[in-house]
Amino acid sequence: MAKNNKGGNTGKAGTKSEKKLKVIPLGGLCEIGKNMTAFEFGNDLIVIDVGVAFAEENMPGVDCVIQDYSYIRANESKLRAVILTHGHEDHIGALPYFLKEFKCPVYGGKLTVELVRHKLSERNVSLKGISLEAVHNGDSIKIGNSFEVEFIRVNHSIADSYAIAMKTPVGNVIHSGDFKVDFTPINGKVMDLQRFAEYGKQGVLLFMCESTNVEKDGFSQSEQQVGESFQKIFGSTEGRIIVATFSSHVHRMQQIFTAAEMYGRHVCLSGRSMVTCFNVANSLGYISMKPDTLIDIDDIDRYDDNEIVVLTTGSQAEPMSALSRMAFASHRAVEIRKGDTVILSAHPIPGNEKPIYRVINELFKRGANVIYESLAEVHVSGHAYRNELMLLHSILKPKFFVPVHGEYRMLYKHAELANELGVPMENIFIMNNGDMLSVGRKKAEITDHVASGSVLIDGSGISDPKNHVLSERRKLAEDGCLCVSLTVDDKTRELACPPVVDSVGFVFDDEKEDFHADCAARVMSLLSKHARKNDILEAEIASRQFKDRIRAFASERTGRHPALIVNTCHINPRR
Amino acid sequence: MAKNNKGGNTGKAGTKSEKKLKVIPLGGLCEIGKNMTAFEFGNDLIVIDVGVAFAEENMPGVDCVIQDYSYIRANESKLRAVILTHGHEDHIGALPYFLKEFKCPVYGGKLTVELVRHKLSERNVSLKGISLEAVHNGDSIKIGNSFEVEFIRVNHSIADSYAIAMKTPVGNVIHSGDFKVDFTPINGKVMDLQRFAEYGKQGVLLFMCESTNVEKDGFSQSEQQVGESFQKIFGSTEGRIIVATFSSHVHRMQQIFTAAEMYGRHVCLSGRSMVTCFNVANSLGYISMKPDTLIDIDDIDRYDDNEIVVLTTGSQAEPMSALSRMAFASHRAVEIRKGDTVILSAHPIPGNEKPIYRVINELFKRGANVIYESLAEVHVSGHAYRNELMLLHSILKPKFFVPVHGEYRMLYKHAELANELGVPMENIFIMNNGDMLSVGRKKAEITDHVASGSVLIDGSGISDPKNHVLSERRKLAEDGCLCVSLTVDDKTRELACPPVVDSVGFVFDDEKEDFHADCAARVMSLLSKHARKNDILEAEIASRQFKDRIRAFASERTGRHPALIVNTCHINPRR
Repeated sequence: MAKNNKGGNTGKAGTKSEKKLKVIPLGGLCEIGKNMTAFEFGNDLIVIDVGVAFAEENMPGVDCVIQDYSYIRANESKLRAVILTHGHEDHIGALPYFLKEFKCPVYGGKLTVELVRHKLSERNVSLKGISLEAVHNGDSIKIGNSFEVEFIRVNHSIADSYAIAMKTPVGNVIHSGDFKVDFTPINGKVMDLQRFAEYGKQGVLLFMCESTNVEKDGFSQSEQQVGESFQKIFGSTEGRIIVATFSSHVHRMQQIFTAAEMYGRHVCLSGRSMVTCFNVANSLGYISMKPDTLIDIDDIDRYDDNEIVVLTTGSQAEPMSALSRMAFASHRAVEIRKGDTVILSAHPIPGNEKPIYRVINELFKRGANVIYESLAEVHVSGHAYRNELMLLHSILKPKFFVPVHGEYRMLYKHAELANELGVPMENIFIMNNGDMLSVGRKKAEITDHVASGSVLIDGSGISDPKNHVLSERRKLAEDGCLCVSLTVDDKTRELACPPVVDSVGFVFDDEKEDFHADCAARVMSLLSKHARKNDILEAEIASRQFKDRIRAFASERTGRHPALIVNTCHINPRR
Repeated sequence: MAKNNKGGNTGKAGTKSEKKLKVIPLGGLCEIGKNMTAFEFGNDLIVIDVGVAFAEENMPGVDCVIQDYSYIRANESKLRAVILTHGHEDHIGALPYFLKEFKCPVYGGKLTVELVRHKLSERNVSLKGISLEAVHNGDSIKIGNSFEVEFIRVNHSIADSYAIAMKTPVGNVIHSGDFKVDFTPINGKVMDLQRFAEYGKQGVLLFMCESTNVEKDGFSQSEQQVGESFQKIFGSTEGRIIVATFSSHVHRMQQIFTAAEMYGRHVCLSGRSMVTCFNVANSLGYISMKPDTLIDIDDIDRYDDNEIVVLTTGSQAEPMSALSRMAFASHRAVEIRKGDTVILSAHPIPGNEKPIYRVINELFKRGANVIYESLAEVHVSGHAYRNELMLLHSILKPKFFVPVHGEYRMLYKHAELANELGVPMENIFIMNNGDMLSVGRKKAEITDHVASGSVLIDGSGISDPKNHVLSERRKLAEDGCLCVSLTVDDKTRELACPPVVDSVGFVFDDEKEDFHADCAARVMSLLSKHARKNDILEAEIASRQFKDRIRAFASERTGRHPALIVNTCHINPRR
């Protein structure tokens, strides 16, 4: 397959003057998170999704990661719209940053748009110049002169999820968004396979498809499976039931309300994002329940244990989440006790396994019965397995294919799959963020690479991963920091007083005082022989060797290698 | 079940003077790693296993974690022997620390003892006062006046693994070690179920059993399954084959040699621990191969690609391991290229998923075909699944049961299982490290709690997890360190010169210079109003408020909260 270089048909297809559709992924390729793709034709540019990514473990202290918007900035006059496939953070989470700078209409499903509205207001991003437009299945919107964008319903782990079909001057483009094929979804609305088939019949020039579960054989299970498990568990449980799941998973939420009502239980909500998502979903009429089913978490003690379901955040053991606080006995309203049943209705995000097991251990220690994925079917994936991907490929029969939404190995496996299903290797492109794919009617090739990459948000600061603050932090985390303060008398060119040494995160408490005193003495002796030679004291302090000698002393004494700061104050400065 | 308090039968069983067997786990309970259990009767104390644990992610910079030996120290005169179940790091890894301090005979399987010998010599631990004694299946050793210890063969992911049967004055104790039941093991030696059955017939007072896979239903697959997968893959692969696995997995190693020879390939070794383990295993005659199968890794280019198998460390994507170096193109002899097939013959240790996937992505990017657990059966677990545990319970029919080797949820599930199989709840003990279980013929109860817990090894330092150096390091990793140096003239009681500010891991490069200057100015102004009132400058510098104001300035400006060091030098000190 063509990869990161000029690929595609090598024949001179199309006329020389044929305008090309430019497809530029700015995030989400060869990574998980911060999905964003720009589509440009002539004077029109539209963007599908503007998501956020979690900080990697080699980015200590970073709050989140967003895309590099340089390309949008350079083409701002062309920007016509943002199109949202669904309301997950990795698809909408960077919008507050994006919409602070760029103003345009934003189109998405009802729930998506309301979640964005809430997010923008929370972050004090003005709606001036931005219109949030809610769409329905089959809605088609003409954008600029070059695009007609249609929203096609798919199934996924959040309501109102859509694939995007774009009619462009060179042909039809389908972007799958995140999807699965659920033949028995909770709201009865199966993915609109017929509409996909119509596009397939018309002809699909380019198919971009998510790759999350390409490594998993077969079909994913229906969300209904989880409801059946809930009903089985609820029906055989005596005490309180606490269910942790993703707050945006409205269908899962509905199934918990349904199971609760079936067994005469009330539901209360815990965790800020759970309350937000519930309120948004409920205001849209997406939750069907009896008027008295929902109760306030502060009223929980007015009911018997077997009348209670607590629906909570924290299924990923986020440190400050409601479930973690319950487990470690710092939750305001709910303390876990013997007889409680806790259901973790989620799959660990890779890297989260250890914190999740720590929470599970703690819940067991407090006497709860804990039910999690490896013990019962209390979660199903929202992403298409291999056979579902094959189904969509077979319906669409695209000319060109770009696997998206996945790490490199998933894109690779998805490319292999597309090839097995009949797309020639030279028509398949494993792209990197920033690659520009130029697509004509007969030919596609990667023609350019624009600025892309990760922008780190840390407090009020913004940086890039190459910034060496991050490598400093990694070093600090290993061995801490040693700080030596010197005062030099510029008149005598001698130290004006003994060095002062302190450290943080470096030596253990019982060694600390001795080490600091010895280190100060060592610095003193390092400098004293030079102090005698007056003129070179300052040069010595500034020299690499001086710092190296302090580092050598520290590592000889402790076996550790702290970061080193040497501050030099000057008295009696010469003019 | 009885848990962390006086449990067991409450009837006054046994005579008042009956001596009890004390069982004291010093590691491995409610955690993964650093397995160690002390057994004490009268004047005799023996220890089963002295393992090491990896540092947790909340212990930045810590090299490894070992047990607290206070109890052994207090009872050193009673120490008769260390008994080793097998040669994995979590069972032998802390021996260099232990044997530096305590001298006694060490018993274990041949491979185990040779790995220990190598480890001690590597760490310069003298063998004086220590004898390393290799045992075989069925060997029975009288230790002190109270113990007769028998080694019973089990299957596991390292050769020479044993369960331990102890005849004690109060009855028979069985410790499972780590085990699985493999009916078709590579060396033909099935776990000695008959001998376990004989003990079951005689009567087992106390059974201590590992709990790793208690959450997994059914039977684990045979190691032979992996060999079949290897042969299938080797038979259909053209280019070089690189297999990463655990270096101590001698049977896996054998299967790779077998498959290599079957398809006319030579094997070379990469990674220090792989070479060590191979040499030890080969010197014991545990590897069966033709004389010319093994080649030197530096000769790799003398052979065709389809004649090569590289057997390497790095299946857990350890940063400096051979496979990681191959993936990131810093390996001395092997550079991954198109046509290579890489097999990861291991299961990710929880928490290692992300680094492993990073290596896999990198290998794919370099053109390799990567085969890993989710795609093919290239690994099986070395630990008993639920049905295997049930088999051993049913053969042994113990009076008392203690689940070991697992996090709390596993111990809990294992306790439930034992109860289902007929052990009364009051005879089952979920123990914590440091709990002392006093076992008589008719009654067992937790009677005491001794010093236990984690001792952290960091460079040459030794500490405990409560030490606040670790919390400082976590803070440093988040937001870095800010260091303010002041020089006070003790005669004038004024600042002798402007403050000097530096930081590390805190502000991004482009903000750094401005921030330091502004911070210095701020500190100056904070102190100048006090400097006027002469006498309280020092008090102000020492005050909590002064530091709080610097912190507030830093967080207002950056949204971050760095660790803060304020060093004060004094000139013209008053006597």
